[in-house]
Amino acid sequence: MRYEELTIEGRNAVIEAFRSGKTIDKVFILDGCQDGPIQTIKREAKKHDCIVQFVKKERLDQLSETGHHQGVVAFAAAYEYAEVEDILALAREKNEPPFIFILDNIEDPHNLGAIIRTANLAGAHGVIIPKRRAAGLTATVARTSAGALNYTPVAKVTNIANTIEDLKKEGLWFVCADMGGEVMYNLNLKGAIGLVIGNEGEGVSRLVREKCDYIASIPMKGDIDSLNASVAAGVLAYEIVRQRMN
Amino acid sequence: MRYEELTIEGRNAVIEAFRSGKTIDKVFILDGCQDGPIQTIKREAKKHDCIVQFVKKERLDQLSETGHHQGVVAFAAAYEYAEVEDILALAREKNEPPFIFILDNIEDPHNLGAIIRTANLAGAHGVIIPKRRAAGLTATVARTSAGALNYTPVAKVTNIANTIEDLKKEGLWFVCADMGGEVMYNLNLKGAIGLVIGNEGEGVSRLVREKCDYIASIPMKGDIDSLNASVAAGVLAYEIVRQRMN
Repeated sequence: MRYEELTIEGRNAVIEAFRSGKTIDKVFILDGCQDGPIQTIKREAKKHDCIVQFVKKERLDQLSETGHHQGVVAFAAAYEYAEVEDILALAREKNEPPFIFILDNIEDPHNLGAIIRTANLAGAHGVIIPKRRAAGLTATVARTSAGALNYTPVAKVTNIANTIEDLKKEGLWFVCADMGGEVMYNLNLKGAIGLVIGNEGEGVSRLVREKCDYIASIPMKGDIDSLNASVAAGVLAYEIVRQRMN
Repeated sequence: MRYEELTIEGRNAVIEAFRSGKTIDKVFILDGCQDGPIQTIKREAKKHDCIVQFVKKERLDQLSETGHHQGVVAFAAAYEYAEVEDILALAREKNEPPFIFILDNIEDPHNLGAIIRTANLAGAHGVIIPKRRAAGLTATVARTSAGALNYTPVAKVTNIANTIEDLKKEGLWFVCADMGGEVMYNLNLKGAIGLVIGNEGEGVSRLVREKCDYIASIPMKGDIDSLNASVAAGVLAYEIVRQRMN
């Protein structure tokens, strides 16, 4: 998944993008490349806490649109990321208890877009995603969010479990959707809340699950295992909406 | 959206597919083609109530994988369709009031798959889709349904509004998700029910909307217009589940 307008190729172009303050999601560098400009790119990437991946020439050729990547291809975010503090500020501004979606490694950009769309409509104040492994704010995400990315802040954090700890100090409770929990209708989901949604295949990671105050289960009356991640997020988010409205 | 294993090309292959009883979703025929085998294909298509589309050579070339389409390309269903009666029989067998999803022109196969997955897990007895315009049971739908297509019957009908009329005689009430309705939490959604989900862009069509007993609105607390269709279906389906569990 990639888009020409978001792909930056060549040493100078990538260095320039970093220096202009553009948010770069990821940089691919030719394995073994060690010259001056490449060192500069590695330094800039480190400074901006951006992920660097060392790849073979074939992979770079495949990523390149122009064919002139000079050993470097970078993917820029389609949207700017917010800070967790911005999300809390938005809740304060609206005079509402914080309601935050925390996505523990959603990988499919269509799911990420649909969840940001749901977060907006359910009245959540923002979405938190992890820096590594997960889908970033690409053009597909922007499109499937149906405009929600223009309104709902999305923050990217290094460690979801640590962020949950920090947010607990702000008075938030955390609920994750997982099997073996209490049926969601029986939980008290009012007040300041973080809704944790796990990865499409693996669900919520153990470490993050352990940080949650509640494990909510969505009643499963069928033959298969689990709902689509964005549907599960919607169902649980609207149970929170229902309880908040009462 | 198409898949080699489901694309049948060439006159004999298409005639053979019809005669072997395979479910063909659509046949594309070269505009102006009038010879014997083509007439046979048109006759078979009519007999099996299959949609025929006349297209230019460029379109056929584009649809063809092999390059040897001989003026005909057919798309076969990845799964067999059920009848509406099978869905009602499943409800009787489980001794439950019928709970049926009716999809008024869902076009995106990912949405269709996710909705069939939700229908299975929400305990619905089946899904009804229209013959024209909508997505059929392709390989993408099968994959995104995460196996639900193996359990949840999907019926294809010529006219959704007529099917709703017929099902009303079986004691079903119909609710559609649309703006300007009553907040879903305030509606009584127990008993034999048909949940109507509209098209991704246009929502529920006027004719179908007029056949519905209730119009349910999902609370919208954000800045954008509407949820993703499969998320909306999930949210409303689980409000039905909640009420049925009480």
